[in-house]
Amino acid sequence: MEAEFQPLFEPNGIAVIGASRTPGKVGHEVLKNLIDSGYNGYLCPVNPKAEDVLGLKAISSIKESNDNIDLMVVCIPAKFVPTVMEEAGEAGVRCAIIISAGFKEIGPEGAKAEKLLLETAKKADIRIVGPNCLGVISTGPISFNASFAESMPKPGNIAFISQSGALLTGIIDWSYQEDTGFSKIISVGNMADLEVTDFIEALRHDENTDVILVYMENVRDGEKFLNIARKACSEKPILIVKSGKSSEGAKAASSHTGALAGSDRAYDLAFQKVGAIRASSMEELFDLAKSFSMQSPPEGENTVIITNAGGPGILATDAVASNGLKLASLSESTQELRKFLPPAAGFHNPVDMLGTATSKEYSQTLEVCLRNESVHAALIILTPQAMTDTPKIAEKIAEIKKNYLKKPVIAAFIGGEKVEEGVEILQKAGIPCFPFPERGVKALAGLTKYAEFKHVSPEEDYPRFAVDKKAVKNLFSQVKEEDRVNLLVSEGIYALSAYGIEAPPTSLASDPEEAVDLSAAMGYPVVLKVASPEVLHKTDIGGVEIGLKNAEEVKKAFKRIIYKTRKRMPNARLYGCVIQKLVPTGREVIIGATKDPTFGPMIMFGAGGIFTEVMKDVSFRLAPISRNEANKMIFETKYYSILRGVRGEEPSDIPALIDTILKVSQLITDFKDEILEFDCNPAFVYPKGKGCQALDVKITIRK
Amino acid sequence: MEAEFQPLFEPNGIAVIGASRTPGKVGHEVLKNLIDSGYNGYLCPVNPKAEDVLGLKAISSIKESNDNIDLMVVCIPAKFVPTVMEEAGEAGVRCAIIISAGFKEIGPEGAKAEKLLLETAKKADIRIVGPNCLGVISTGPISFNASFAESMPKPGNIAFISQSGALLTGIIDWSYQEDTGFSKIISVGNMADLEVTDFIEALRHDENTDVILVYMENVRDGEKFLNIARKACSEKPILIVKSGKSSEGAKAASSHTGALAGSDRAYDLAFQKVGAIRASSMEELFDLAKSFSMQSPPEGENTVIITNAGGPGILATDAVASNGLKLASLSESTQELRKFLPPAAGFHNPVDMLGTATSKEYSQTLEVCLRNESVHAALIILTPQAMTDTPKIAEKIAEIKKNYLKKPVIAAFIGGEKVEEGVEILQKAGIPCFPFPERGVKALAGLTKYAEFKHVSPEEDYPRFAVDKKAVKNLFSQVKEEDRVNLLVSEGIYALSAYGIEAPPTSLASDPEEAVDLSAAMGYPVVLKVASPEVLHKTDIGGVEIGLKNAEEVKKAFKRIIYKTRKRMPNARLYGCVIQKLVPTGREVIIGATKDPTFGPMIMFGAGGIFTEVMKDVSFRLAPISRNEANKMIFETKYYSILRGVRGEEPSDIPALIDTILKVSQLITDFKDEILEFDCNPAFVYPKGKGCQALDVKITIRK
Repeated sequence: MEAEFQPLFEPNGIAVIGASRTPGKVGHEVLKNLIDSGYNGYLCPVNPKAEDVLGLKAISSIKESNDNIDLMVVCIPAKFVPTVMEEAGEAGVRCAIIISAGFKEIGPEGAKAEKLLLETAKKADIRIVGPNCLGVISTGPISFNASFAESMPKPGNIAFISQSGALLTGIIDWSYQEDTGFSKIISVGNMADLEVTDFIEALRHDENTDVILVYMENVRDGEKFLNIARKACSEKPILIVKSGKSSEGAKAASSHTGALAGSDRAYDLAFQKVGAIRASSMEELFDLAKSFSMQSPPEGENTVIITNAGGPGILATDAVASNGLKLASLSESTQELRKFLPPAAGFHNPVDMLGTATSKEYSQTLEVCLRNESVHAALIILTPQAMTDTPKIAEKIAEIKKNYLKKPVIAAFIGGEKVEEGVEILQKAGIPCFPFPERGVKALAGLTKYAEFKHVSPEEDYPRFAVDKKAVKNLFSQVKEEDRVNLLVSEGIYALSAYGIEAPPTSLASDPEEAVDLSAAMGYPVVLKVASPEVLHKTDIGGVEIGLKNAEEVKKAFKRIIYKTRKRMPNARLYGCVIQKLVPTGREVIIGATKDPTFGPMIMFGAGGIFTEVMKDVSFRLAPISRNEANKMIFETKYYSILRGVRGEEPSDIPALIDTILKVSQLITDFKDEILEFDCNPAFVYPKGKGCQALDVKITIRK
Repeated sequence: MEAEFQPLFEPNGIAVIGASRTPGKVGHEVLKNLIDSGYNGYLCPVNPKAEDVLGLKAISSIKESNDNIDLMVVCIPAKFVPTVMEEAGEAGVRCAIIISAGFKEIGPEGAKAEKLLLETAKKADIRIVGPNCLGVISTGPISFNASFAESMPKPGNIAFISQSGALLTGIIDWSYQEDTGFSKIISVGNMADLEVTDFIEALRHDENTDVILVYMENVRDGEKFLNIARKACSEKPILIVKSGKSSEGAKAASSHTGALAGSDRAYDLAFQKVGAIRASSMEELFDLAKSFSMQSPPEGENTVIITNAGGPGILATDAVASNGLKLASLSESTQELRKFLPPAAGFHNPVDMLGTATSKEYSQTLEVCLRNESVHAALIILTPQAMTDTPKIAEKIAEIKKNYLKKPVIAAFIGGEKVEEGVEILQKAGIPCFPFPERGVKALAGLTKYAEFKHVSPEEDYPRFAVDKKAVKNLFSQVKEEDRVNLLVSEGIYALSAYGIEAPPTSLASDPEEAVDLSAAMGYPVVLKVASPEVLHKTDIGGVEIGLKNAEEVKKAFKRIIYKTRKRMPNARLYGCVIQKLVPTGREVIIGATKDPTFGPMIMFGAGGIFTEVMKDVSFRLAPISRNEANKMIFETKYYSILRGVRGEEPSDIPALIDTILKVSQLITDFKDEILEFDCNPAFVYPKGKGCQALDVKITIRK
């Protein structure tokens, strides 16, 4: 456990501020829970009006405490909390769990109180859990229940961090029935000080925790989350249910926590980037938790299904495909299986041992399959038939599994009373068992996903190209000086060029004569585009003319464009026209970026033109990205099949496209505090070896 | 109950063929199960070697039976079954449940035996369940267990038809734990005679059944299923888990049942067409079953979420959005809720009553919400907090719900022991309760989907246009006479024209001179396309020339095309070239059709050109289709936004497109035994009022 969190998870002494003699009051329940949970450090009720509470000698103020108290649990009304913080700081308290409500969650008044609280705590050098939380529970190494949840969970290797306190009481109660144990339970409340990420970091160092579960509504500091969660994920799996997925959900979330939530897509990308696994429901979260707490991730995706009932075997096969796993090929093992299974059995994957399967057949089949090197994981299905000795089968499965520690085995025993004993035997032996095969397959898929993440290097390598960062910085300053936020195309192309992104020669001409000179210099034919910070959709107002072949055409076009723009947008500032050398048409793509309020720059790649808007054939990542990520972004679009070369057409220059995307990633990362919107649309990708060109780009910077 | 099934579900007397005195033998277990299940009709063991079995007088052959026996359960080896069928027919038996295995499922030998069995049964006028099945169980009106599943389920209003017998034993055992009751359980086995559809029809008439559940691997007669299931769905919900979804699953399915399965997409379309609800997993199947057995479908999609815990409320909100439901607007009720809920509560949807919520607050809130006319359904979430009186809350919910029969109420009580009693109270009162909110929302979504189906007229109206069917018939005969299966473009366009589908003038020219004459008659410019039944991809071999403006160009193009084709495909039969009048370009779409082996003609609509192949922006229906379905097909594609007119562009002629799709539907339905493949690609859709034109069409007919 990290030093900073030592007092929170391994306190020498705990004070309960507002400890009460009245049952039902939070200050009473918390103290009672601490006593009942067998906390054996120094426990000190603080109550100005009582000599003792629940048999413990009380002090009237935290000021009177001895030096042993490093953690306090605060259960008094909000308005009294700041004073207590000051006193506690002087008394040497290091951490406070503030259960008291009446802060940010009640509106602007409360938010002000919370700000004051945080300031006082910082001065007093006290770290805060909460306010408005359920508390903290630890089952080891030191066992205590510093919460008002009346039950203590069973000890286990799963830690649960929750942004909903009310959810925790239900989950603790439910976990008894499911025989699930927890190492720590942390209700984070309003996260005035410590947020989800801090606890992830703490649990990374916690020897009692193997799996970290999170119910999340938002992250406060996106960058911190990315750094810390990535490190944690490379050591322990992090499983997250994030609510506020839908816009409706997000609305509910922000009124609930009073927090400004980032868009859900950014969260998805963040989890993907750090290797955290997102569960789609509470049930899936706990199915995954159970599996991760009992089994190691597999070394591959090849799964074998072993069953005594055909139907459920096929359902599991469907689930294997829809969850991105693969059926292992058993061709090597078929001969061996034929030796002991009945001739009518199914010898391919799924292995259908038929309804007559004995414990010996189960164990032999499992052994043969796990021995097969191309098998990475197994799902064992059982339905209770007349001759099914379920407990014996469970014992045998557990026995075989012991010899294959790196190959996860998950079971689905379909039934009630008849399979109960078998299920218990399996789970005691560390083999998770589900009532239906689909849930078992989903759990295996989760394990596999984590294995894939660990397989890929957790420290991604973000390529840095030699660029002229200063040129872009100066450009942005200049634009700001002119009181603009939108760059002209010529300026945008200049910025891209400074980052090594190829583009046709592009210059600003303020009058027709300059346009002709510039055109002659770059060579005909050329394109003219109106240059105005106010005109965003140039084509719509007739502000673009293509394929101008000589001085005469350029002059006329210049005048026409200026005339049309003046007529349609009389108030637009007019800088003249941008001249661009006409280049051959390539495959049209878009490279864009926006800024997520939580996680910062987000890069987008997609098919250009109509595909972007209508087909929404795009993919996203959080920037900066690695070469591998750029590659995957392209691969994820359907347009990839066109870039690759469909129906004998020439393949496009994908390596050049990857470089272009990486350079954009570098640009938006370098200027993450400046660039708000970025749209390079279109860029042309030429056939292999011929590169990419950025034709147009819109950049909006911060005021 | 229909007359035909009377003996199966309400037998006057049952004979057990192969009734055995040896425990463990199927013939013993079946008889024992019949006795134990309290069957009070005439029960007759048949065993040539025993005077009595399990205390009942045995007869040595079914021939000796009296007229009371109308149902027999057959438990003897496969080879003896046909003889028994003959004898039973003479003895007046009407139905046979054949548990015996050794038929189609064991391979070609068994398939032969099954064929013989079926022939014998037909002659004897006996309907068969099975062979290779678990049997049939009924809990009412007549209660009996004619299976070798040792437990009898609790009585209930759910019927379960299963193509997997082994699955049933698990489900019966599991249902005790879940307190789920069944009216009938039917293991269909190999479906030699009676198939899933027959039982759906029977259960439609069964007064004890309100919900029909199916575990399906395949349907034998697609058309019969469509007709019967549609009728049944309009009376009772049919919930289906169909396995073999993935190609991997389908492989496993066909080796399991030996049946030729249709493609999974066709099943999806078939379920959609009849209004059956497809569950994505066993768990979802039973969640839906529980909900349908207890609650009525809602009158709309507006759902209210009532909770005492914020987090689960947001998770439910997310689930509402992702399952296609809507959050009801509570603006009308907010004032009223403010009267009794604490000021810090959430008054919008979800209604967060806070952790302090009492049974009175639960009941008042539910009452206020259900009274609101814009609310169609409710999800009630509970987590056990210190002051949560769960049983009382459950009672109150049940009380309020009684007054709102048309508004389904589903609960999610998160917890274990602390919520157990409440859950029991709710479920006894007919309110399904789930451990997590997401499952509750999914169940509500299922109820809503069924309500939508019932809302739409179950008898779809398939428009019939006045067409020249005979012309197409003659054309197909002629093509067949020439020993061809692929129609020339000119022939295809002729067929379309016969069905009132517009197309540019198109004719076959056998030499350059004829081509010139035809071109002159239709007017320049024209298009030339090679006419050969062997050339399917005309463009690829240079077999198409566009925009020919005069006689000279037509002559030259004709010769070039013939030359190129001869060179590239020397063995292709060459009919000359098809001349087509060049028409202006419109929005490119594709209208296609294939034939599913089970469900017949399947029609496809999609965006043409690159969109079809790369973006797979297409939608399917089983033909024939209604106007409403054609409309939905267009709407389901992303290309719809282009057809509708994006960014101020002119909208396309969607009514004309709908007519065109309907006419194709009529053509492929009229010739469903002839047309194997159909691709009208491209068709052009012109701006509103200007119609559609079919430019090219490939039709492949049966040999």
